[in-house]
Amino acid sequence: MLNIVLHEPEMPANTGNIGRTCVAAGARLHLIEPLGFQINEKQLKRAGLDYWDKLDVTIYDDFNDFLEKNPGAKIYMATTKSKQKYTDVNYEEDAYIMFGKESAGIPEEILLDYKETAVRIPMFPEIRSLNLANSVAIVLYEALRQQGFPELETKGQLHHYEW
Amino acid sequence: MLNIVLHEPEMPANTGNIGRTCVAAGARLHLIEPLGFQINEKQLKRAGLDYWDKLDVTIYDDFNDFLEKNPGAKIYMATTKSKQKYTDVNYEEDAYIMFGKESAGIPEEILLDYKETAVRIPMFPEIRSLNLANSVAIVLYEALRQQGFPELETKGQLHHYEW
Repeated sequence: MLNIVLHEPEMPANTGNIGRTCVAAGARLHLIEPLGFQINEKQLKRAGLDYWDKLDVTIYDDFNDFLEKNPGAKIYMATTKSKQKYTDVNYEEDAYIMFGKESAGIPEEILLDYKETAVRIPMFPEIRSLNLANSVAIVLYEALRQQGFPELETKGQLHHYEW
Repeated sequence: MLNIVLHEPEMPANTGNIGRTCVAAGARLHLIEPLGFQINEKQLKRAGLDYWDKLDVTIYDDFNDFLEKNPGAKIYMATTKSKQKYTDVNYEEDAYIMFGKESAGIPEEILLDYKETAVRIPMFPEIRSLNLANSVAIVLYEALRQQGFPELETKGQLHHYEW
């Protein structure tokens, strides 16, 4: 099962949106405090629609707390500061993909320990960055694509039909 | 240049977000009326941040108007109703990828003419659909990945560095 990790997310609409994507993709969500919102806040529920209760979500006091509770986690750090593209690595089935806060990304002191597995989404320099929820969707679905959408294809098929 | 087409989008925050993604990806945006908002509405600008003026965007009266002004367009219809995955097709450099409104998707009368190029994003049946902006990001970046992020790699590199 793939894992999305948000380090100190600020905007409830983004985290709600990412929760929805995780339910759709069958991924677990990990939130590292401090968060810029209450987890039961109206805005988060609205952005995450009625899917939040179907989400496998865990909250941590800080990055060390996360590391202690997920020993041996293979973590890919999504950052504009990496030269390696997010399509250049092979994600394990139980990989963790971590994203920093909207205003600043992942702190450099954390990135220094994860140079080899840091990944970047290519984009034009006209823009500072993609929206956080969109970035998560892009990298998570690249990992799923590499794995052939295995469980999604089995379970999801009943849901779909041809017109 | 890749093209994103939104058919009668309803939520300004989504369209703003998609505009931001198009600027990041170097894609053109096509909006087909009626829109659920004014194009200069505050909310759209806020969601699209300060990037809206850098966006190559065209607005059309309806789908026929779009077809007339983009003759020969190779259009991929993103819909939950296709059996073909969005990763199963090869997107041309000037491909058009079209998405329906948030509440209903692309109308069946349009889809009937585009069965061969309709594509679906795999997802668990627990969720009705992904957020529209996230869906656009996923398919657009799959098309870019297939093409090797050509222009992005050239122009984007100046912007990036290793820590």
